[in-house]
Amino acid sequence: MVKIPKVHPRRKSLISRKAIVDATKQGLLADSAMIAHGRGEAFDYLLGEKTSEIAKLSIKESAARLISAKHPVISVNGNTAVLAGKSLIRVAAVIQCPIEINIYYRTEKRMDLLHDYLESQKLEVSKEDNPINWHGDWESAVMAVKILGKEEDGKIEGLEGPRAICSAEGIERADVILVPLEDGDRCEVLVSLGKNVLVVDLNPLSRSAKMATVTIVDEVSRMAELLLQYVIENPSDNTEWNNDLALKESLEIISNYYVNQ
Amino acid sequence: MVKIPKVHPRRKSLISRKAIVDATKQGLLADSAMIAHGRGEAFDYLLGEKTSEIAKLSIKESAARLISAKHPVISVNGNTAVLAGKSLIRVAAVIQCPIEINIYYRTEKRMDLLHDYLESQKLEVSKEDNPINWHGDWESAVMAVKILGKEEDGKIEGLEGPRAICSAEGIERADVILVPLEDGDRCEVLVSLGKNVLVVDLNPLSRSAKMATVTIVDEVSRMAELLLQYVIENPSDNTEWNNDLALKESLEIISNYYVNQ
Repeated sequence: MVKIPKVHPRRKSLISRKAIVDATKQGLLADSAMIAHGRGEAFDYLLGEKTSEIAKLSIKESAARLISAKHPVISVNGNTAVLAGKSLIRVAAVIQCPIEINIYYRTEKRMDLLHDYLESQKLEVSKEDNPINWHGDWESAVMAVKILGKEEDGKIEGLEGPRAICSAEGIERADVILVPLEDGDRCEVLVSLGKNVLVVDLNPLSRSAKMATVTIVDEVSRMAELLLQYVIENPSDNTEWNNDLALKESLEIISNYYVNQ
Repeated sequence: MVKIPKVHPRRKSLISRKAIVDATKQGLLADSAMIAHGRGEAFDYLLGEKTSEIAKLSIKESAARLISAKHPVISVNGNTAVLAGKSLIRVAAVIQCPIEINIYYRTEKRMDLLHDYLESQKLEVSKEDNPINWHGDWESAVMAVKILGKEEDGKIEGLEGPRAICSAEGIERADVILVPLEDGDRCEVLVSLGKNVLVVDLNPLSRSAKMATVTIVDEVSRMAELLLQYVIENPSDNTEWNNDLALKESLEIISNYYVNQ
């Protein structure tokens, strides 16, 4: 792929695309990961490739719910790890929760590769300076983040086959789960188990988006950077959160994007 | 990839996705072809995965212009060949025009693979029954379709480097070109050379879509099947074609898709 000029108006999008192409070549991602990424590109284009006001509110609400959870967990699939792995490790370090690798087309090889990938990202993050406004021992906080997923000692009740596999210490016991780019079936089952499911999905009409407790309609890497700010700010949660209303606002943004051309 | 149930509501979309994944593995497509396909999936989803009335009109207009052209050509890239190769060979057989392989990331290997792929598709198509309402010697008509692109004996004036390469007998001398999924720069240059450029693009806001003489906002395989019907029906062209108005109608369809949820 060609080099991306520093001044290119869509530089961030092109860098993400290159990261996904490279990770596919390295075997980190499933066959159809690039297709999923392309769908995301199209939906993000319709959002003007920026985080909307309603998305900011939903990220803040998610931050509050993760902080007040008994057993929060951040679930990541391959695309999420590649696009937002470092940012989500920082978030996990601040709230001290585990990250669980949770992939749709599960193979032992890809689980191992993603595990090693996230562990090496974790090591890099641990050597960074403290995030702005965060006080404490950053290296210890980061290195305390567990990367779960390989244990396969838990089960998601209500699912069958490999998709039911999870970690007992992660998704199984979690009361609040942040799951970017999640499959609709799994999202539905997690909600039915009484968990708070915080979904990141660029399509406000997807089944996951409609099912979730809180839906963040935003690109996952932008979302993760903002989530880090918010978990440090430590906001209160809003028990009155109306997810249908939030989805409606996202739909209107996309619709207006077309009308106003 | 899993087997697709016969009754799946999105069966056609999933079959196309599988074809793109398989062709990528066979080396027919560039790295980013799957990402481009994913973007297409998202836009098609917003069209309800069906051909709109305005798309039908633009396909009919394109049929008329191809028929009345002196030197029509159908330009295909990798994704188009995989998704609509056979249908476009049928169209080329009916109007007796060449097909030119025209790829953005040009390598000799991919040109050879795509050439062989289209030649084998051509052989299969030549053994089919006549298309409905078409009369004549189908096998001869199909086998007379030239698959151009490897000659590299032509140039698109106004472009530099490998993207300027074309076939003298194809794009260089053509007065009317059907170019599904074309790059914006190349579309602009082809229009500036005074050619009639018929573009197929699912995003009515893309540069190609805005630049084209006639823009078909539709999925390429559905478009190609309908185009075959229309070239057999032999419609008259409409010199009053207003492409801006047609694009506006497509934008409204997408916008309404969101509003009506």
